[in-house]
Amino acid sequence: MKNDEEQIRGLVTNWMQATKAGDVEMLLGLMTDDVVFLLPGQPPMDKQTFAAAAKVQSTGNAPAFEGTSEIQEVRILGDWAYLWTRLTVEATFPDGRPAMKRAGHTLSILRKESGKWRLARDANMLTSVEPQGARQP
Amino acid sequence: MKNDEEQIRGLVTNWMQATKAGDVEMLLGLMTDDVVFLLPGQPPMDKQTFAAAAKVQSTGNAPAFEGTSEIQEVRILGDWAYLWTRLTVEATFPDGRPAMKRAGHTLSILRKESGKWRLARDANMLTSVEPQGARQP
Repeated sequence: MKNDEEQIRGLVTNWMQATKAGDVEMLLGLMTDDVVFLLPGQPPMDKQTFAAAAKVQSTGNAPAFEGTSEIQEVRILGDWAYLWTRLTVEATFPDGRPAMKRAGHTLSILRKESGKWRLARDANMLTSVEPQGARQP
Repeated sequence: MKNDEEQIRGLVTNWMQATKAGDVEMLLGLMTDDVVFLLPGQPPMDKQTFAAAAKVQSTGNAPAFEGTSEIQEVRILGDWAYLWTRLTVEATFPDGRPAMKRAGHTLSILRKESGKWRLARDANMLTSVEPQGARQP
């Protein structure tokens, strides 16, 4: 039986794998129904909006995602927890468009529902960075 | 005796007042010693770095700050809490430089220390917006 911190680390691993696989249903199972995503310069995003955007992104000329998530801090507060990560995500496109790389920090609130940890609030502070090999000579 | 949520709402009010007054010592008293500020495109900022930056900002040609903070959600988790706000801050400069306005969301972790709520982790997703009256004709 994994303890809470191990389960939360597993949630992060599963999130990265589902993102890479473009598995929208799996991603939706990793968040609460009342989840809120907060990003710079955008209105708060709910689960329905996330699902619609992710489904569009996973069809047609879907980019391939590669990412790494370095957990900076996890703190369990009963059936709640907060999580601070440093995240890097690189998207490459099948049509040969230049790769897009984003990096930065996330601060998330997690909630344990029926014994399962899920993402409940997410502050995403990633910004564009230059992908490897994209530098001008 | 105020309840926890009222005390946290008071913390937000005090934070905005201290910012407006340029009262760095008061601001430092509203955060834990291990506070971490997370912003897009910047390394995490600790209390010492915050203090140094705030002190530089409050001397010489110090801008005047006006801000509003609309609390979207407060949830108490024992001696911890999380807080989601929509924040608007406008800086005006004594030398007549154009005003700078930033708006967006914050997600913060608060901790109760010796009966007093303080800011412990802060995710700041504010971006530049056009100040009032700055629009081109």
